[in-house]
Amino acid sequence: MSGPGQREFFTVKTVAEALTGFRPGRRTGVESVTLDDVLGRVPAEPLSAPQALPGFARATVDGFAVRAADTYGASEGLPSYLDVAGEVRMGEAPELEVRPGTAVAIATGAPLPAGADAVVKVEHTQAATPELLEILRPATPGEGLVRADEDAAPGDELVPAGRPLRAQDLGMLAAAGLVEVTVRMRPRVTIVSTGDELVSPDSPSLATGQIRDATAPALAALVREAGGEPHFAGIVADDREALAATLRAALPESDVLVVSAGSSVGVRDETATAIASLGEPGIWCHGLAFRPGKPTLLADCGGVPVIGLPGNPRSALVVFRLIGMPIVRQVGGCTDSPPAPTVGARLERDLPSAAGRLDVVQVRLEGGEAVPLFGSSSLLSILTAADGYVVVPEAATGLAAGSEVEVTLYR
Amino acid sequence: MSGPGQREFFTVKTVAEALTGFRPGRRTGVESVTLDDVLGRVPAEPLSAPQALPGFARATVDGFAVRAADTYGASEGLPSYLDVAGEVRMGEAPELEVRPGTAVAIATGAPLPAGADAVVKVEHTQAATPELLEILRPATPGEGLVRADEDAAPGDELVPAGRPLRAQDLGMLAAAGLVEVTVRMRPRVTIVSTGDELVSPDSPSLATGQIRDATAPALAALVREAGGEPHFAGIVADDREALAATLRAALPESDVLVVSAGSSVGVRDETATAIASLGEPGIWCHGLAFRPGKPTLLADCGGVPVIGLPGNPRSALVVFRLIGMPIVRQVGGCTDSPPAPTVGARLERDLPSAAGRLDVVQVRLEGGEAVPLFGSSSLLSILTAADGYVVVPEAATGLAAGSEVEVTLYR
Repeated sequence: MSGPGQREFFTVKTVAEALTGFRPGRRTGVESVTLDDVLGRVPAEPLSAPQALPGFARATVDGFAVRAADTYGASEGLPSYLDVAGEVRMGEAPELEVRPGTAVAIATGAPLPAGADAVVKVEHTQAATPELLEILRPATPGEGLVRADEDAAPGDELVPAGRPLRAQDLGMLAAAGLVEVTVRMRPRVTIVSTGDELVSPDSPSLATGQIRDATAPALAALVREAGGEPHFAGIVADDREALAATLRAALPESDVLVVSAGSSVGVRDETATAIASLGEPGIWCHGLAFRPGKPTLLADCGGVPVIGLPGNPRSALVVFRLIGMPIVRQVGGCTDSPPAPTVGARLERDLPSAAGRLDVVQVRLEGGEAVPLFGSSSLLSILTAADGYVVVPEAATGLAAGSEVEVTLYR
Repeated sequence: MSGPGQREFFTVKTVAEALTGFRPGRRTGVESVTLDDVLGRVPAEPLSAPQALPGFARATVDGFAVRAADTYGASEGLPSYLDVAGEVRMGEAPELEVRPGTAVAIATGAPLPAGADAVVKVEHTQAATPELLEILRPATPGEGLVRADEDAAPGDELVPAGRPLRAQDLGMLAAAGLVEVTVRMRPRVTIVSTGDELVSPDSPSLATGQIRDATAPALAALVREAGGEPHFAGIVADDREALAATLRAALPESDVLVVSAGSSVGVRDETATAIASLGEPGIWCHGLAFRPGKPTLLADCGGVPVIGLPGNPRSALVVFRLIGMPIVRQVGGCTDSPPAPTVGARLERDLPSAAGRLDVVQVRLEGGEAVPLFGSSSLLSILTAADGYVVVPEAATGLAAGSEVEVTLYR
């Protein structure tokens, strides 16, 4: 076991510094994905309309296509009279033309016939005879319709680069006929667990001293939430050479490399040594001014971000949510991260915190109050009981009971 | 085309009535899913700890396992002296016992040896000789460790029923060795599009009057977001018999049935007639006091929720987000819907609204202001340009410029 003095050499950074300053260059390549599978994927380039949308002027109401000039001055007392020249059929190019003094029946969504420049709602008309229509209100040109390029003109940007595609974006791409979409590949995130105490989650029974690896499956889930593809490289014993060999083998196949390290100081030092040997420029910080998450290591190994997580499962998950998920998104080309759900609440009790250190405090919500959950950072039950967390920023020296706080909610 | 008078027979409900009052009985069955694939899935029953977790008392600091009583009164000036009897090995049952007057070196996460009831941090010790330890501060029993059942006692609920599983829940299940999890099956949601104007999104070119079906792919994406499995039954022509036949065939294979109907009044009437023939108790409401989304139809056909959506793509997507996604979640056993991200903003301009009607207004966020986006509900570009939406509740007659509003953000 190494002495505690060794920790004084850590290069400690703040969370804000890590989020803005740690920028390894790795970005995933692109691939073509069908519309059915592209929800949440990140376009590498903006996608533009190949042609105008909807492509033809369409009625937006049920009624009659008219020349607006024919309706000027119309009123209930003194209607305009127009001859009904027929009906536009849905989904077909209209053969009829609206000549002066005539109207053509049209349903919502149908194409505007030639000659018409407005659609009068059926509610503003009255049938004098089946062939003669009374117009009860004047129409203005453009009323009751959308233009041929009102949803998009040719070349208009339909969706931006860097923002994960949303349901409505898929609708817009479908409307434009873009059924194959070029997006960034999902970052391949390799997860390596170390620790002589760890056994696989499928181990039916445990000897005293063994625990199942809870961190790796939870990290894999967070990787998926961030749009990445987790790959588990297995549990490596606390052995510097074994760990270094595993990391060297994993690096070339990884867009992000995550080491879920044992929690003792000795193991952390082994991990740092192994990561430092992986490539240049190497270790960027060894320690974050962050509770729980101080023993976090960030390295840039030939452009690939390498994240050494604290050994305690709760710390590891909190760090990965705050630091790791943004890194995975960044490598996957996401420049517009999805917003996290939050809710305002009153803090139920005082939260002490050291200035210069960011604290993430798990809370339950109880009737508008945020109730902090305390306990060892080795306890996962604190995280499963939590509805969300409160961040006590670096500048604060704590928050007083009754303060209004913003709770970031788990989902 | 039917007359407008027919719409007066609609059974119009409010959105709130629909969300609380429309409760078809359908629930999906259960299946066993491996831990790797269970993120976001919904447990049908609470899942409990088969054994205590972590299963043994563990050190939470690097230091020395001691009998606390041996450290009482210790100080920097007058340390307690203990014989170092050895070291606990990580991941193995300790063979050493901590007898009175002795200490055993222990790393974070290692099992507490017999006889010990506390772990003193290495920082609070000093080596007098390799075999003799000075304790500089007194320890209290239970300090520096977690109990064998501190994360969970046997039978404790690890995760509740009805809440989609989160990353940390997967960690807890892994810790407990629950690698096969019984969850609700994903609701199978059949989507039927109708409209003579509709063609498939993969149609390379369009005749005047035709548009690609933008709604179905976007609905499929919202179904996935709600935990369902979308199945597209195709585009049916505006023909009562064809639509009724398609719906009858789809119903037995559906947990939820969604009809994305043509937008003209006539087509809506055909859709209502076809849905009404599907089963008892039948149509629950035909119209929502909701803009955009008035021509929404909800029916309970033998327990299966059937949703008839407005024909305009934007209306259809807004309705499905507000009404359809909660129905999909409910059928999938989700009783604790994930929170939506929101942000406060100042309204940039007045929003008029009729009392008794809920309005959903799309907005862009610009420097803390919510800028409403207006336009025909046939325009998808309003939705793709939006960052989120503002709800003007039923009771309000509009919102004034400068009001503080809550924007629900798309993600």
